[in-house]
Amino acid sequence: MRVSTRWYRWLILICSFLLLHSSGCAYRSARTITQVGTFHDLSAGGFDGRMSCRRLGSYGNFGIGTFHALDGEMIVTDGKIYQAKSDGKVYLPNGGTTVPFAELVSFAPQAKLILKGGANYAAVEEQINKAVPDRDIFCAIRVRGRFSKMKIRSVPAQVKPYPRLVEVTNHPPVFQFDGVSGTMVGFRSPLYAGEITVPGYHFHFISDDGNSGGHVLEFAIESAAAEIEECDRFLLITSEKGLGGN
Amino acid sequence: MRVSTRWYRWLILICSFLLLHSSGCAYRSARTITQVGTFHDLSAGGFDGRMSCRRLGSYGNFGIGTFHALDGEMIVTDGKIYQAKSDGKVYLPNGGTTVPFAELVSFAPQAKLILKGGANYAAVEEQINKAVPDRDIFCAIRVRGRFSKMKIRSVPAQVKPYPRLVEVTNHPPVFQFDGVSGTMVGFRSPLYAGEITVPGYHFHFISDDGNSGGHVLEFAIESAAAEIEECDRFLLITSEKGLGGN
Repeated sequence: MRVSTRWYRWLILICSFLLLHSSGCAYRSARTITQVGTFHDLSAGGFDGRMSCRRLGSYGNFGIGTFHALDGEMIVTDGKIYQAKSDGKVYLPNGGTTVPFAELVSFAPQAKLILKGGANYAAVEEQINKAVPDRDIFCAIRVRGRFSKMKIRSVPAQVKPYPRLVEVTNHPPVFQFDGVSGTMVGFRSPLYAGEITVPGYHFHFISDDGNSGGHVLEFAIESAAAEIEECDRFLLITSEKGLGGN
Repeated sequence: MRVSTRWYRWLILICSFLLLHSSGCAYRSARTITQVGTFHDLSAGGFDGRMSCRRLGSYGNFGIGTFHALDGEMIVTDGKIYQAKSDGKVYLPNGGTTVPFAELVSFAPQAKLILKGGANYAAVEEQINKAVPDRDIFCAIRVRGRFSKMKIRSVPAQVKPYPRLVEVTNHPPVFQFDGVSGTMVGFRSPLYAGEITVPGYHFHFISDDGNSGGHVLEFAIESAAAEIEECDRFLLITSEKGLGGN
């Protein structure tokens, strides 16, 4: 049979569009945070990776986490995954590197706040809480600009038997910068989610030159803005073991 | 241009397959519990509906919940939504009826347990815990058969200002059946999820004749089996208000 291809071309175009549009679906849809692993597990020393970076990247272009054996702090921004290790340097993990805990979103901010010069962590929290007063809503937050102070930590890779998380984070390598440009990537989570994820504010940082990064302990704003996305969906991926296997 | 349509036909077939396969994606994918609202909110009197039954149905064919103003207990089985009201009768809500809290799954059990005759709630919990010992995994559970005892409750519709949930469930209408055939629909949730959802076991019941249903308080097995699906994904839909609107 030979017919005009015009009609088929349109059908293929429409199918392709719908396919691309729906293939990410919940995972990549705006306002959905996808988290691999629970904070409950991580706190108890559950540091074994359970998902590859390659696969993790399909759940968003923005987020934070850690790596197999707690080998550094993860920063995901503009779709790139960075690994800030305890030697103070930032690496690009390969796709096969696994993660025990991470939360990602396809970042699509709905609001932008110019932050006050000199504002510290608490002051920035207060400013964001005024903009999004309902504390029961998850938010993804990006703070970009220049910081007059940035105090970050990373964590060294652990060996089994793994200690509890707090034993590692009690005395981590800490790095402080007095004047640095970069991006804080993070989330505000409701207190009711306090065992599933890190409750309240949680930021990781990466410098614009890509040389420094880690978990944010303290900071002061020189000149920066916060972009905020309220997320009304939170997809928890607990584990892939179990009755059904894979 | 005129070419053979054979190649196009295959492409359309493949596109259509992928499209159908992916269109439900996370929401309808096996092993994903989707929950609307948090138990945290519901406990505090957040009884206002936030999603229609019509839309809720797209997240699964099996589950439990409640209705706007706490007007009865929800049972979803084989894709049908039942409303067991405090008058002891079971209704079919229309698609526009809204729900403040519900959890659904596309039920695909991986294991089946024959339950011991005479077993009560605690004994059935123990038998399931032996089959799925990792308590940090969410399970969807269907228990079908004959019960020598079934004690259920429902809750009456509330008016604003809504009381706390516990004030309603302290003295609810209770119905007891000595010998009834039916289905218990429910979940086992990890304790770490205890503010987001109901921790531990939580069952609703509907009789085979469709005349009786409610939240399960006590039961005894005459002859029944439990089918279990381990769910490694939990999608929480908190609210649809917020900065971004809808």
